[in-house]
Amino acid sequence: MMNAEIDFGLLARDGAPARTVKAGTTIFAEGDAANDMFVIKSGRVAIRLGNRTLAELADSSIFGEMALIDRAPRSATAVALTDCELVAVSEKQFLFLVSQTPYFALNVMRVLARRLNITNRAFG
Amino acid sequence: MMNAEIDFGLLARDGAPARTVKAGTTIFAEGDAANDMFVIKSGRVAIRLGNRTLAELADSSIFGEMALIDRAPRSATAVALTDCELVAVSEKQFLFLVSQTPYFALNVMRVLARRLNITNRAFG
Repeated sequence: MMNAEIDFGLLARDGAPARTVKAGTTIFAEGDAANDMFVIKSGRVAIRLGNRTLAELADSSIFGEMALIDRAPRSATAVALTDCELVAVSEKQFLFLVSQTPYFALNVMRVLARRLNITNRAFG
Repeated sequence: MMNAEIDFGLLARDGAPARTVKAGTTIFAEGDAANDMFVIKSGRVAIRLGNRTLAELADSSIFGEMALIDRAPRSATAVALTDCELVAVSEKQFLFLVSQTPYFALNVMRVLARRLNITNRAFG
């Protein structure tokens, strides 16, 4: 799948507490209320909508940011493909990062723009 | 087409110089070098990739932001569907807005997240 992702590894360093999830775990499901986005510290995560895999993401990628940006329920389902270490970033932390670190905001925009490009082309 | 757009009309007020383009004009074409994004002050614009219309946008929407975000050539073609008044925002102005006005950054993210949601669902 797509792999034009930005390195958000910095958010997962400096002793940020990581949660471990086992391979096969549903991290969140479409329609769930959303409070966090996630940085993958290690492992691989699939983003799915119905039967389709929208993306497979690995170390230092982010996911779950869309619901925070749009203050909406989860628009897709995230499943751990391997055992994963994930760092959760709360909505409050996310808004702080966007407002205090323009580079973070631009990188989130880049992730979204690349995913949109890939999606537009995949269904051409 | 999609119409979950954010109001960027503020960028087109306060006497910002607008350029007028006639219906049928190609504003930019896929592959072009990109220096600006645009705010629609009046009129309607289609975003196309090959034969497909990805979006039809109206007053106070933005387009052309993706190439600025990703520092890449235009990923799609923009055509004026009606006579339009457009306000150009340079890359430098765009980066200034992102860094100085977190609300602008969040709104650009919202546009991208909504377009991605709509695209993911359209091809389900």
